[in-house]
Amino acid sequence: MTEPGINGERLWNSLMELARIGATERGGVCRLALTEEDRRGRDLFVRWCEEAGCRVRVDAMGNIFARRAGREDTLAPVLSGSHLDSQPTGGKFDGAYGVMAALEAVRTLNDHGIETRRPLEIVSWTNEEGSRFAPAMVGSGVWAGAFDLDYGHSRTDADGVRLGQALAAIGYAGVTMDTNERPVAYLEAHIEQGPILEQEGQTIGVVLGVQGMRWFEITVTGQDAHAGPTPMEGRRDALLAAARAIVAVNQAGLSQTPDGRATVGVIRNRSNSTNVIPGEVFFSVDLRHPQVTALDVMEANLREQCEAIAADSGTGFVMRRIWDSPPVAFADPCIDAVRAGAQTGGYRHRDIYSGAGHDAVYVARVAPTGMIFVPCAGGLSHNEQESATPEDLAAGGDVLLRAMFRLADT
Amino acid sequence: MTEPGINGERLWNSLMELARIGATERGGVCRLALTEEDRRGRDLFVRWCEEAGCRVRVDAMGNIFARRAGREDTLAPVLSGSHLDSQPTGGKFDGAYGVMAALEAVRTLNDHGIETRRPLEIVSWTNEEGSRFAPAMVGSGVWAGAFDLDYGHSRTDADGVRLGQALAAIGYAGVTMDTNERPVAYLEAHIEQGPILEQEGQTIGVVLGVQGMRWFEITVTGQDAHAGPTPMEGRRDALLAAARAIVAVNQAGLSQTPDGRATVGVIRNRSNSTNVIPGEVFFSVDLRHPQVTALDVMEANLREQCEAIAADSGTGFVMRRIWDSPPVAFADPCIDAVRAGAQTGGYRHRDIYSGAGHDAVYVARVAPTGMIFVPCAGGLSHNEQESATPEDLAAGGDVLLRAMFRLADT
Repeated sequence: MTEPGINGERLWNSLMELARIGATERGGVCRLALTEEDRRGRDLFVRWCEEAGCRVRVDAMGNIFARRAGREDTLAPVLSGSHLDSQPTGGKFDGAYGVMAALEAVRTLNDHGIETRRPLEIVSWTNEEGSRFAPAMVGSGVWAGAFDLDYGHSRTDADGVRLGQALAAIGYAGVTMDTNERPVAYLEAHIEQGPILEQEGQTIGVVLGVQGMRWFEITVTGQDAHAGPTPMEGRRDALLAAARAIVAVNQAGLSQTPDGRATVGVIRNRSNSTNVIPGEVFFSVDLRHPQVTALDVMEANLREQCEAIAADSGTGFVMRRIWDSPPVAFADPCIDAVRAGAQTGGYRHRDIYSGAGHDAVYVARVAPTGMIFVPCAGGLSHNEQESATPEDLAAGGDVLLRAMFRLADT
Repeated sequence: MTEPGINGERLWNSLMELARIGATERGGVCRLALTEEDRRGRDLFVRWCEEAGCRVRVDAMGNIFARRAGREDTLAPVLSGSHLDSQPTGGKFDGAYGVMAALEAVRTLNDHGIETRRPLEIVSWTNEEGSRFAPAMVGSGVWAGAFDLDYGHSRTDADGVRLGQALAAIGYAGVTMDTNERPVAYLEAHIEQGPILEQEGQTIGVVLGVQGMRWFEITVTGQDAHAGPTPMEGRRDALLAAARAIVAVNQAGLSQTPDGRATVGVIRNRSNSTNVIPGEVFFSVDLRHPQVTALDVMEANLREQCEAIAADSGTGFVMRRIWDSPPVAFADPCIDAVRAGAQTGGYRHRDIYSGAGHDAVYVARVAPTGMIFVPCAGGLSHNEQESATPEDLAAGGDVLLRAMFRLADT
C-alpha cells in the first residue's frame, strides 16, 4: 500500500457537524436511538456515504450498511463502524467516532483512487447505548444471532413505543436481516472510555478482547439495634460487615492487576437512621477480567472473604450471581492488522482490553473482529464533557485505514 | 423502713390496662403525644393517682404531677416518673413503666399505712419521644429551663398543629410552669433498651449517668468513573474510602470498651449504579461515652483515621460535628439509694450507663437525679415486640420504692 494518510481535518469536521444534531447546551450530544435526532444523524451519514460512492442498504433492525465495491466484488467484505445513537447526556465521540473513521477511510481511498481487493463496508448499528430501548447493542445482537428479530422489534421504551414501530416511524425499517454474507473481518474504532492510554502517553490501543464480567447482588443480614445502649461487643452490624466486604472486593481486584476490575457501585442500608445499628444492607459487586480463570479466582476469593466476614461478625451473607458475560478474545488476524497499522504509522501503542461492552462483542460471535482505541480526556465517556484530540482521532483513523486495507487484501 | 414489698401483680395489671389505650395489632402501643389516645392514658393515670389519695396538678407544658403528702409536707418532695407517650410503633413499657412503678410505690405505702417524711410526687412528662413534636423530652426540658415555654408551645407537628394548641385540645394545658419548688431528688425507672442486663443475668441496673453523644456528618468526595475500563490503581473510589472509615469508626468504639459506642447508621451513595465507581458518599457517625475525655479521644482518633484514608485514597473527607450532647453524671445520693435498694432487696445488680436520652437528662440540670434499669428482651425498644418480665418489672418497682423511701427520709 502506498500510504495516503487520512484527512484528519475532514474527519474532525465530520464529527463536529454530526455533533450538532442533538447538541446539548453543555457541549454534549443527546441523540437517543430512533428519535428524530437519530433520524437526522442517519440521514446525514447516508448522504455522506452515497456522496462517497457507496451503495447503502438498511436491514430489518435498522442497521445501516454502506458498501464500497472491491476489485473482487463477490468476496466477503471488510466491515467497520460503530453506532450513531448516544446516551441522554452523551458526548461527541462515543460511537460516532467509529462510524466517521470508517467513512474517512473510504473517502481517503477515493481521494487517491485506490481500489481494494475485497469490498469495504461501513456500518452504523442500531441502539447500541440501550438508553431508550434496553438491552444495549440490540442491533448488532440481532444481526449476530444473539437475539431473534421479534425480540429486537418488541423492545419497548419508557413511553411504551416498540422498537419496531420507532424504526418505521423514522423510515429506517429494512425488510430482512440480510445475514447470508458474513464479513471477512470487522474493525471498530472507539475512544477508550478509560484513562490508560492518556496516562501512559500512548496514542493507539490494540484491543485484544473484551473483559468478561460477572455481577453479584449481596444482602447482609445482622440485627437492628439502638446505637446508644448496645455495646460494641456482640453487635451484629450489617453495614460494618458490608464495609469489610467492600474492602475485600477491592483486594480481589488488586490481586489481579493490571487487568482485573472489582467494584462495588450500589449500596443500600434498610434502616438508614443515625442512631440505629444497621440490620440489613444490600450491595452490588462488578468483577471483570479478560480471562475466565482469573474471574473464577476473584469470585472464589470474594465468596471466601464474605464467608469469613459473616462468621466473624455474626451476620449472614446471601450472594447471588445475576449476570455472567464471558470474556471475548478478538481474532489474531484483526489484532495483527491493527498492531501492524500502528507500527507502520509510527504511533505509540499498547495492547489493551476493553472494559466496556461494544457492538464488537456480538459481531465477534460470527466474524473475526478487532478494535482500535484512542485516548479520551480523563477516561471520561457517557458524559457531555467527553473529549478527544483531533490528532489522536486522526491517528486512530489512519490505523483503521491501514488495517482495513491489509485485511481487504487477504 | 419495714419492707412491705410492692404488689408486682398490680403493677403488671396496671401496665397491661394502660397498654390497651393505643394498642396495636402486633402487640405494641401507638400513643403519640397529645393525641386522643394520650388523653385517655393521661385520664386513666390521673384517676388512679386520685384514687391513691394524691393531689394532681398539671403545668403549662402538660406535665402531670401527683403528690402524696409527707409528714413534713412543706419539705421538697422526692419526684419519680417518666412519660406516657409512645413511638408510632412503640411498646408497652418504654416510659409507661416508670410512671406506673412510681404509682405502685405510692399504692404500696398506702396499703401499709406508711408515711414518709417528705412528700412524694409521681410525674408524667409531656412528649418525651419527640415522634409527634420534635425535639424529644420537651416537657421535662421546659420544666428544667433547657427551653423556654414559648419554644415548647410553638413546636409543630407534621399537620401544622402547635404543641400549645394540642395541649388545650385534650384539656391538659396548665397555667404556669410551677418550678419554684425543685424536688430533693428525682428517680426514673425504665427498661434498659439495651442487652447488657439480660445477657449478664442481672435484674437491676444502677444507672450512673447518661452517655455523652456526638453526631457527625461526613462526605467523601472521589471521582465517578466507569467500573470496566478504569484500572484498580488510581481509582478515587469514595465508597471504598467510606468503607475503610466505617471500619475505623468501629475500631474507635472498640478502643473504648466497655462504655464507648461508635456507630455508622446512615450511608448514601450519590451515583449508586452497579458499573459506576462511586464519586461521592455520605455517612453519619454517632459516638457515645460517659466521659468527655474519652469522647475527645474517639473523635480525635476518627479525624486522624479519616485524614489518613483520604490521603491514601485520593479522596476528600469533609467532617461536620452536628450535635454534641455532653455526658450526664447522676447524683451520688440517688445512685447510692438505688444501689442500696438493690442490695437490701437482694437483687443481682450492676452499675450501668444509659446510652439513650431520658427526661432524667434534663431533670438532672436542676435536681439530684438517678435511674433504675430493668432488663428488656433482646435489648429491644421503640418496637412493638418490646418485652419485659413481670418479675423484673416488680424488682425494679421494689428498688424504686426502697430508694424513694430512703431519699424521702433525708
